[in-house]
Amino acid sequence: MADPIFENFKDIPTTHKAAISDHVGDYPTIRTVPTPQPSSLKPGEALVRIVYAGVCHTDVSITMGKGTDLPVEPIIGGHEGAGYIVALGEHLGPGKGPKLGDRVGVKFMADSCLTCDECLDGAEESCPDIAINGTTQEGCFQEFIVSRTVHLTPIPDDVSLAEAAPILCAGLTTYKGLLNANLREGDWVVIPGAGGGLGHFAVQYAIAMNYRVVGIDTGEEKKQLLDSYGCHKFVDFAIEKDIPKAVEIAIGGKAKAAIITTGVIQPYQQALKYLGIRSTLVCIGLPHNGLFEIDACQLIINSSKIVGSSLSNRIEAKRALTFVSMGKVKPNIEIKEFKELSNVFKDLQVGKAKGRIVVKLF
Amino acid sequence: MADPIFENFKDIPTTHKAAISDHVGDYPTIRTVPTPQPSSLKPGEALVRIVYAGVCHTDVSITMGKGTDLPVEPIIGGHEGAGYIVALGEHLGPGKGPKLGDRVGVKFMADSCLTCDECLDGAEESCPDIAINGTTQEGCFQEFIVSRTVHLTPIPDDVSLAEAAPILCAGLTTYKGLLNANLREGDWVVIPGAGGGLGHFAVQYAIAMNYRVVGIDTGEEKKQLLDSYGCHKFVDFAIEKDIPKAVEIAIGGKAKAAIITTGVIQPYQQALKYLGIRSTLVCIGLPHNGLFEIDACQLIINSSKIVGSSLSNRIEAKRALTFVSMGKVKPNIEIKEFKELSNVFKDLQVGKAKGRIVVKLF
Amino acid sequence: MADPIFENFKDIPTTHKAAISDHVGDYPTIRTVPTPQPSSLKPGEALVRIVYAGVCHTDVSITMGKGTDLPVEPIIGGHEGAGYIVALGEHLGPGKGPKLGDRVGVKFMADSCLTCDECLDGAEESCPDIAINGTTQEGCFQEFIVSRTVHLTPIPDDVSLAEAAPILCAGLTTYKGLLNANLREGDWVVIPGAGGGLGHFAVQYAIAMNYRVVGIDTGEEKKQLLDSYGCHKFVDFAIEKDIPKAVEIAIGGKAKAAIITTGVIQPYQQALKYLGIRSTLVCIGLPHNGLFEIDACQLIINSSKIVGSSLSNRIEAKRALTFVSMGKVKPNIEIKEFKELSNVFKDLQVGKAKGRIVVKLF
Amino acid sequence: MADPIFENFKDIPTTHKAAISDHVGDYPTIRTVPTPQPSSLKPGEALVRIVYAGVCHTDVSITMGKGTDLPVEPIIGGHEGAGYIVALGEHLGPGKGPKLGDRVGVKFMADSCLTCDECLDGAEESCPDIAINGTTQEGCFQEFIVSRTVHLTPIPDDVSLAEAAPILCAGLTTYKGLLNANLREGDWVVIPGAGGGLGHFAVQYAIAMNYRVVGIDTGEEKKQLLDSYGCHKFVDFAIEKDIPKAVEIAIGGKAKAAIITTGVIQPYQQALKYLGIRSTLVCIGLPHNGLFEIDACQLIINSSKIVGSSLSNRIEAKRALTFVSMGKVKPNIEIKEFKELSNVFKDLQVGKAKGRIVVKLF
Repeated sequence: MADPIFENFKDIPTTHKAAISDHVGDYPTIRTVPTPQPSSLKPGEALVRIVYAGVCHTDVSITMGKGTDLPVEPIIGGHEGAGYIVALGEHLGPGKGPKLGDRVGVKFMADSCLTCDECLDGAEESCPDIAINGTTQEGCFQEFIVSRTVHLTPIPDDVSLAEAAPILCAGLTTYKGLLNANLREGDWVVIPGAGGGLGHFAVQYAIAMNYRVVGIDTGEEKKQLLDSYGCHKFVDFAIEKDIPKAVEIAIGGKAKAAIITTGVIQPYQQALKYLGIRSTLVCIGLPHNGLFEIDACQLIINSSKIVGSSLSNRIEAKRALTFVSMGKVKPNIEIKEFKELSNVFKDLQVGKAKGRIVVKLF
Repeated sequence: MADPIFENFKDIPTTHKAAISDHVGDYPTIRTVPTPQPSSLKPGEALVRIVYAGVCHTDVSITMGKGTDLPVEPIIGGHEGAGYIVALGEHLGPGKGPKLGDRVGVKFMADSCLTCDECLDGAEESCPDIAINGTTQEGCFQEFIVSRTVHLTPIPDDVSLAEAAPILCAGLTTYKGLLNANLREGDWVVIPGAGGGLGHFAVQYAIAMNYRVVGIDTGEEKKQLLDSYGCHKFVDFAIEKDIPKAVEIAIGGKAKAAIITTGVIQPYQQALKYLGIRSTLVCIGLPHNGLFEIDACQLIINSSKIVGSSLSNRIEAKRALTFVSMGKVKPNIEIKEFKELSNVFKDLQVGKAKGRIVVKLF
Repeated sequence: MADPIFENFKDIPTTHKAAISDHVGDYPTIRTVPTPQPSSLKPGEALVRIVYAGVCHTDVSITMGKGTDLPVEPIIGGHEGAGYIVALGEHLGPGKGPKLGDRVGVKFMADSCLTCDECLDGAEESCPDIAINGTTQEGCFQEFIVSRTVHLTPIPDDVSLAEAAPILCAGLTTYKGLLNANLREGDWVVIPGAGGGLGHFAVQYAIAMNYRVVGIDTGEEKKQLLDSYGCHKFVDFAIEKDIPKAVEIAIGGKAKAAIITTGVIQPYQQALKYLGIRSTLVCIGLPHNGLFEIDACQLIINSSKIVGSSLSNRIEAKRALTFVSMGKVKPNIEIKEFKELSNVFKDLQVGKAKGRIVVKLF
Repeated sequence: MADPIFENFKDIPTTHKAAISDHVGDYPTIRTVPTPQPSSLKPGEALVRIVYAGVCHTDVSITMGKGTDLPVEPIIGGHEGAGYIVALGEHLGPGKGPKLGDRVGVKFMADSCLTCDECLDGAEESCPDIAINGTTQEGCFQEFIVSRTVHLTPIPDDVSLAEAAPILCAGLTTYKGLLNANLREGDWVVIPGAGGGLGHFAVQYAIAMNYRVVGIDTGEEKKQLLDSYGCHKFVDFAIEKDIPKAVEIAIGGKAKAAIITTGVIQPYQQALKYLGIRSTLVCIGLPHNGLFEIDACQLIINSSKIVGSSLSNRIEAKRALTFVSMGKVKPNIEIKEFKELSNVFKDLQVGKAKGRIVVKLF
């Protein structure tokens, strides 16, 4: 899975291929669009040649109008891009800044103001002026994309671009979720959706962070994948009738955290039952109708928490990649041709995808 | 409000007065009970002469069978006691331990195991084997009480026993709630029930901790009390039709935290509306039916939290008293005769009490 | 001490007054220099009309060649500037950015890269590419200065520019020092140099943060100043023969932290004697020859720390101002004419200054 | 390395074997001493049958009078004991407490008061009334020892007693040192003495905690041991002339932390050279003359720290064992007969020991 040797990155074409949905609800089709030229870059901007782009369930939701916000039309989705800097606007501020040829990631959060209290506090993902790739602006399902350099994520030399791609949303999101769970070594964390695109990262990060993990998913294939990561316990949601009870039996007690990586509401409700004292329910997966009932008294008596977790800041994105660089997290990816993107969307809709799909654009 | 000069604390009587409810639902009556004798103390135990005892709404709830757990009968309530050590069992472990005449507090949490993971982690309030004064064992609505010395709270010399009493539940609970809100200087915190027994502490601790405070309560008298603490904004819930909107107007935006000190559910629901990004809803007041609906998507997009907070650990109890010692928190107490306890219960039931009621037992 | 009503901030002159030292060792003289014009501003830059500038001991050290780094010549010092934005370069990135007329502070740290690991981690003050006002570039002892907007500090409406000025180095430095001490409410902190330009801020922040304070300084005037802040204990270094012993007597034991705000080495050595278990020695004041001997065994047995603290990040600078806005910290300033700057330098050299000197430039 | 099946733990003999030095400077000899009988146990005490005991360099130092404190005579050393509870005094407080047959560890810290501010704050190792096994009281170089149950460390079922033993001082000390370094994933930490009894634990904990490690030691055997742990870089102190430079070359820059596990002063001095901005020097190994010179200016400019680290609290001791239970840390032990203890002391004095020596006592 070696990266392409990218020697000609200075030859910027006048047009490039992009996957476009004209309207919300359309599957993307590959078309030719004008390529931003180096001369048009503003100070602090870079032109990035995308080589691989991960395909997230959220891409499908956004394109189909089922995300939390409607995207700008025509839609170019994609928020897990990995590639090379091929042109740079004027550098501002002290230091040398990035240079041509740098391997960089384009993550879900495209930009933030860097001066509001949230940004200053290291919570750029909560900036009120946040820009989102594939929603508020064009994403990276295209060969070239413009980005502010301050929000590009450097990719370590020993991490392939294909493997880096899904870290830039799925990886960093689950890593941040685990940080938000505020666990200590040996604590039990439960991960519904453990074998999925988000979940398989959550399991690996959790194990690398020295937690004990119960993975909830279904089927022998998922179980074997999770076993290969050293996942301590597996609960098959299609077999178990009483999932909270099955979790408690697996652990021999209640859990300290649950990281909900699926976009349905039942795992939220179930988690409230198997979580014990001083526990944390980390909400990541966006359920379509996200309403669920909680009991303030139970929360108070247990001194427990419910925490919303979304994306990560820039340093956490780098750290999420560091785990891959150190060999502690290995993305389970399937590489497809860019032209297959529309089919990949359909596969994701019916739950046919195995691992994280990454499309190649070179 | 000088403490009694307690010179004869070595003369332990054979009987003492206690406020007793034979059954759940009975108002307490003052009766005479046998006094535990020094010779009967186990190692590590102390006999404490209670001088003042705060009366908490929770005492009424527990006695009337409306708490989260039923008390043992006959019921001797009281979990905010302040007094003197008058006898000591054998001291165990290194160090000298407490000595006769020490001024000490008896808090809600009577005891914990000190060896479970929660206790070791500084969360004694979450110990599965926790003992509760006035619920699982006799409380401090009586002149003498036995306690394990490890869970007595030393009272600083410059804090009167009468003022110390309500810190031992109301004070430490709100202080801990604010710690759980994890705010930074200048952040806005909203406190429903701001003028009440819990709330007036929350407001003072919040201001001492350099937060900006919106107090929610009703009436000119409460407003003036809060003004005297330097409370930045006041929202009168009886006047405002749209409380979340009134809070946002007062702040000029959304809040970073709410500390719910009242035992009803509406403030929980309202808080979800005026809390913004990276905010924390701290649940303290136990509503009778504590169910309320939350929206996982909102929580995720806002990276916000809902946190249950109950009591505090031992060092936080000491720190809660330190604020009084440093003159930063001043309990608003009304001292009544012990024999009035039954009437105090009735006043609390109809919301007639002003400030925190403390009964004197000497 | 009302700010000037600054109505004509759009009329940018072609020249302005600046205090210049041609060479290291020269006292500054007021001269006329060309004013940067709005048309010359790069994207992300602002032209700031300085109204007040604090004078720091470090300004004198740098100008006289006794700082840790030599300044660029000719030297325009000054790193505690407060004024108005009077022109803006193109705004980059999302959000609206600052606007004309905004009240802003120019702090010691002029700029940082905002993309290195230190900047990403909220430690911009440790950026390897840091730019320093008055050292690596022109400072704010002049009527107009250019700054990247990302590093300007917004000044709250209710804080005067004159009072804001010294917060931008002295205030934030001591606040950060206290953060680095990692204390809890009621802990004892010792502040050598308590009555000085740095120290009087350290004392006020410490008290606002609910610590107990021993101020070390000399003379009745300093004592009265510190008393007015509520400083708990005062040790007069000119009277006491054994300062560590005097500190221990004042506290009734050992201290949890010392914040060394003076630029001499003895207070460092003394602090090692009066600091106890789990204590922190916070190094702020740069001594000329900073070498001192420590005992690893003592550090280990005490589980104690020695921490270097320098400047603060951007959000801490804002928070340092928040304390002034909330009335918890009040700068003790003496306002002088800009033309007096050279004399102010001489006064600082002989220790004649009372409080923090601020020069006015309008 | 299965534990003995300990069926007859209820048969308490009247005498047992202990390794005794009558005076400071004597090598221990095995003798027969009276065994404390269950009837003599105070409430809260346990009689523990030691099965394995680790031998620490500090045992030799203490016995030879070269520790920081002189031991009580006659000396029974040993502070890394693992065995079974064979008798219990009356249980005090809520909960059931430990039970006969429980597998427990006896660590360096024998006891603490559990009520001082340090104990309450989770820093029992800093309790002024701390008791130390093998120094202030008899240690575990004997078959039976009495301990307060609150300070026994439960040993997980899947950790052998022989492997648990050295965790109880060496393991927890290095784990705590790494906690005190306050690193983030991917940060570089340097460990002088990496192949030694303390160091080989530090390396393994560091790698499990997702740090990058430079081990400093000498010889091919040490290098291979460290390679087997996945240690990222090795610096041979006998080969390199300029160790700080060699470290910087290995890292490609400066380090974020050093954990000094050796008892000599040079590694402290060297560390100050290869540590960079926002770095932490963690002092663990007690050098005989612990004085070394530091430069306050360098500390300030770098915002760096020097931290003393000693032992750990009770929950950290449990967590240190959790790493062994999860297979992330594997003690490198050599088991010897109890009667060999005196020779083990001599081997340690001349540096002949490989790995951690554990003596068996059954």
